[in-house]
Amino acid sequence: MPRISLKGLELPQSAIRKLVPFADAAKERGVHVYHLNIGQPDIETPAGALEALSVKAHEMAEHKGVLEYSHSAGMPTYRRALCNYYHRHGIDVTPNQVIVTNGGSEALQMAFTVCLNPGDEIIIPEPYYTNYNTFAKLCDAKIVTIPSDIKTGFALPPIEEFEKVITPYTRAIMICNPNNPTGYLYTHEELLKVAGLVKKYDLYLFADEVYREFCYDGNKHFSVMQLEGLERNTILFDSVSKRYSACGARVGCMVTRNSEVYAIAMRLAQARLSPPSFGQFFGEAAVDTPQEYFDAVQAEYVARRNVVVEGVNKIPGCFCPMPKGAFYTVIDLPIDDSDRFCQWLLTDFQYNGSTVMLAPATGFYVNPERGRHQARITYCLCIEDLKAAMKCLEEALKVYPGRLPVRKSAAKKAATAATAPKAAPAKKAPAKKKAAKKA
Amino acid sequence: MPRISLKGLELPQSAIRKLVPFADAAKERGVHVYHLNIGQPDIETPAGALEALSVKAHEMAEHKGVLEYSHSAGMPTYRRALCNYYHRHGIDVTPNQVIVTNGGSEALQMAFTVCLNPGDEIIIPEPYYTNYNTFAKLCDAKIVTIPSDIKTGFALPPIEEFEKVITPYTRAIMICNPNNPTGYLYTHEELLKVAGLVKKYDLYLFADEVYREFCYDGNKHFSVMQLEGLERNTILFDSVSKRYSACGARVGCMVTRNSEVYAIAMRLAQARLSPPSFGQFFGEAAVDTPQEYFDAVQAEYVARRNVVVEGVNKIPGCFCPMPKGAFYTVIDLPIDDSDRFCQWLLTDFQYNGSTVMLAPATGFYVNPERGRHQARITYCLCIEDLKAAMKCLEEALKVYPGRLPVRKSAAKKAATAATAPKAAPAKKAPAKKKAAKKA
Repeated sequence: MPRISLKGLELPQSAIRKLVPFADAAKERGVHVYHLNIGQPDIETPAGALEALSVKAHEMAEHKGVLEYSHSAGMPTYRRALCNYYHRHGIDVTPNQVIVTNGGSEALQMAFTVCLNPGDEIIIPEPYYTNYNTFAKLCDAKIVTIPSDIKTGFALPPIEEFEKVITPYTRAIMICNPNNPTGYLYTHEELLKVAGLVKKYDLYLFADEVYREFCYDGNKHFSVMQLEGLERNTILFDSVSKRYSACGARVGCMVTRNSEVYAIAMRLAQARLSPPSFGQFFGEAAVDTPQEYFDAVQAEYVARRNVVVEGVNKIPGCFCPMPKGAFYTVIDLPIDDSDRFCQWLLTDFQYNGSTVMLAPATGFYVNPERGRHQARITYCLCIEDLKAAMKCLEEALKVYPGRLPVRKSAAKKAATAATAPKAAPAKKAPAKKKAAKKA
Repeated sequence: MPRISLKGLELPQSAIRKLVPFADAAKERGVHVYHLNIGQPDIETPAGALEALSVKAHEMAEHKGVLEYSHSAGMPTYRRALCNYYHRHGIDVTPNQVIVTNGGSEALQMAFTVCLNPGDEIIIPEPYYTNYNTFAKLCDAKIVTIPSDIKTGFALPPIEEFEKVITPYTRAIMICNPNNPTGYLYTHEELLKVAGLVKKYDLYLFADEVYREFCYDGNKHFSVMQLEGLERNTILFDSVSKRYSACGARVGCMVTRNSEVYAIAMRLAQARLSPPSFGQFFGEAAVDTPQEYFDAVQAEYVARRNVVVEGVNKIPGCFCPMPKGAFYTVIDLPIDDSDRFCQWLLTDFQYNGSTVMLAPATGFYVNPERGRHQARITYCLCIEDLKAAMKCLEEALKVYPGRLPVRKSAAKKAATAATAPKAAPAKKAPAKKKAAKKA
């Protein structure tokens, strides 16, 4: 047969999905799996927007309508509606600064293609969203990471750490805010520091802000589009997926005030003709989703987060920081190997007929070793299920063969001693024994 | 500002869309523009499928549903429905040989990425669909063309012509069948010849078959998926866009029996999470569109085609072959320069308050010179409008300053003399004067 391309062979496999066959097997054995591994919200999609799409499709059916290509940049009416949405969030952009995309993923792919040469480097605080790897690989760009620390809740690493890794190949800094996988919400001050660096070295600033609506405890989201003097540097990736619990709509956008980047991205947009029309009809109506919807969603996520944070922190040897946004958190676990543990949960463990599925944090680090004792938890389950899942996790850690001796977690100590900025890094205890069985 | 990537700067601009500003200006001056330039069908989208989507969206709104990510390869129910559709067309494939994509464009992009290294060559008979250029450029592959000839209606070039350009870098042969832009429908015999070549050199065979339903005069479509012994070579690109007049759905698919290609393409599919759910709901219902719908559509397109073929051929110096599929044709025109002529139609001409917009064929050839006296016509207008458009074109050619002296077109001569396989190639008459004015 003809051979596969070299790039194809090097494409990373999805770190999050590799455990799926084990979960499927567990379910086949009758074990209930609490999915704490995927960012698929269970919150209802706004009924008003669904109904608007329903009416639109019905009218087209009634009146012999044609489902046409939309403008390659997205329907003008939808782009205007999006600009109204952004305006309400303190972001002033115009419809010709917005390209509607096939989900946020396509926005990323477009920007990477337009901005990055082979060998160019993107600096990203880690842990980071694993799918960025594929889009970087597609343009042979290199992701360079700065570790953020669980002890500070994964706050922005000191700006000096960024400067240490800047080279002539550095082309962009990328942040996800609120953060997937950590749930960290960057402060205005932190973003100003990033802005200073971006200006100093004339870099692109890529920002994934798809969790903008999910900010807790009275904290306000600050967008990179509100940073002054970075009009030609900043590219925003956005999506309706999480905002309206509408991941299947596949409607995102790329926003930039840099007209050259926009013009070149439009060549890509035109080559693939247009973004999905049904999703745009939905998205346009969803812009009018009432604030009560978001208030209720936010209250629900705060309650869920609290269940997770309390549930994890009461387990000996575990530590969960207090995330201020999104619906993820990365936790420390007293285990030999998070890949092995997460697989073992699915293959060898159950408690009252149930188990939990976590995402090993190894996939969120350039060097998997850094995530060897961590896992990402998504709180997209109802409170009752989350409580049951926390109980499952607690029981699992009592019997997991690769469990490490419980000490008070260094991270937990550091986090509780708020005045200890120079806390010693958490030491990795050596792996005790290899216990995973084959599925 | 940070610089644009080299690849970004080299991305081709859409050849078809570059005249759009001139068309917009014409409309602003009150001139009616007959759009013979775009492949956006005006045929109604099947009401049953639209209504099924409407009901589905309404039910989700009623029952607090969640619009989730679908499976990255597409909803299992939709893939099963697609396999039933293919089975009816004599193509036996299974759901795990199908990846549902964001339109046919994403299917192309996936396959090119998985199969082509930088420097690899794809052989395509020209004229060819211009957007292939962007997807080839994205993986630094090179499109190598074999000219097909208007005198044979753009039939498959002799297979020796393919062999002449095969090099160690040749990785694939690509066909579009029925063809955009020529409307040519490849015969079973022609496809068997291609198959022989693909086997001999162990190449990929890429086939864009999005116009499968549009075959006229009793001719039957033969798919590359029906070619035996090419299971590991063949990759099919498909889409609901034209089939159901649903270009805005952005639902296509990539189909292959090559499990290695499939597995690597799935990594790309997983990185972008999923194809659009609303479009898949629509697509699944559309599989049950009754045959009467297609019969009516086909009859309409045949009538339109006949208006165009007769209309063009009665204009002195023009020639239009008889396309057997799709809704395009490439015609010969007695003009100095098709780019100039098509722009002039929009900037300097009107007849009874109207003009026509054509796609200059220069964009459909690797060497634009080969399309200098040709344009693509799309017959996506009603009969009455097409007749008016033909009249417009006739009148325009009477007054176009860059008109060439009328001789009996060499192509027309050759086509009418069916026994003259060695007809002399149409000579290019020299440009008489440069007449285009600025818009």
